[in-house]
Order: sequence, then structure tokens, then C-alpha cells
Amino acid sequence: MKSVRIIIMPKEGLLDPQGRAVEEMLKENGFQVSNVRVGKVVELEVSEDIDLHRLVEKYLINPLIENYEIEEHSKKD
Amino acid sequence: MKSVRIIIMPKEGLLDPQGRAVEEMLKENGFQVSNVRVGKVVELEVSEDIDLHRLVEKYLINPLIENYEIEEHSKKD
Repeated sequence: MKSVRIIIMPKEGLLDPQGRAVEEMLKENGFQVSNVRVGKVVELEVSEDIDLHRLVEKYLINPLIENYEIEEHSKKD
Repeated sequence: MKSVRIIIMPKEGLLDPQGRAVEEMLKENGFQVSNVRVGKVVELEVSEDIDLHRLVEKYLINPLIENYEIEEHSKKD
């Protein structure tokens, strides 16, 4: 088994209403922020031989509107 | 300005119904997975002198049920 973290973000150029809402809220509270985007992260342990790209593209994201990154970590124990 | 990514996960030991649902769905589709957890990621650009921990702890997470990690990236351009 290996530990994997998948970062799923709305594609650049697409509306991200959740990000917009967070940005407005932070600015109203005095923080200088910009380009706020909100996405999802899925952490899981998978067997070594898994087709991770198929898993992500078929079951976890909507490829029309989302991009993803995969970070693999070797298992500690 | 600097680019920051904040990873927000449900605390270990707490129920994560979304993670459970994703795990069941992946298993039903033949994937060997375990310990699936679903969290949020917030990417943003902030001024260099910002109190990032205060921003996150006061405005982005519920510290009773969520943990977070901050990843800082220097701005490319």
C-alpha cells in the first residue's frame, strides 16, 4: 500500500463561487488576499499497482471543470 | 505577495462521512483502497506580512474538528 494525496481544483478561468465568497469575506476582515480558489483534497491508501489516473479521472473529478495533482508518499510503517 | 496552499482535513478519529462514501464507492468499483479522507484546499495569494495562522484558524477552519497544513510557494513571476 502507498499513501496518496489528490488535490482537486477548479480549472483556471472557470468561475469559483466558493473561492470568491472566501476572498470577499477575508477582505472584509482586513486581509490583503487575491486569487482565492477553493478545491478538494482526497487522501487515501491504495495498492501499489493501482491505476491512479483512471481512479481519479473516472471517479473523483469532473475533467471538464476540474484539474488535479497527485502526491505520493511512501508509507511510514 | 506570496502564494499559499492550505490543506484542511477532518481530525483523525472523527467521523468523515464524505471519506466513507468515497471509500465505499471506490471499493464497489473494484479498487483496493483504505483510510479515505476528504478535506478542503484553499489556494490564495497573500501579502508577505500576513498572520496566516490567525487567518486560517479564525476564518477558514473549525479547530474542534479540523487540522490544517500550510504550504508556501514563492511567486513565479
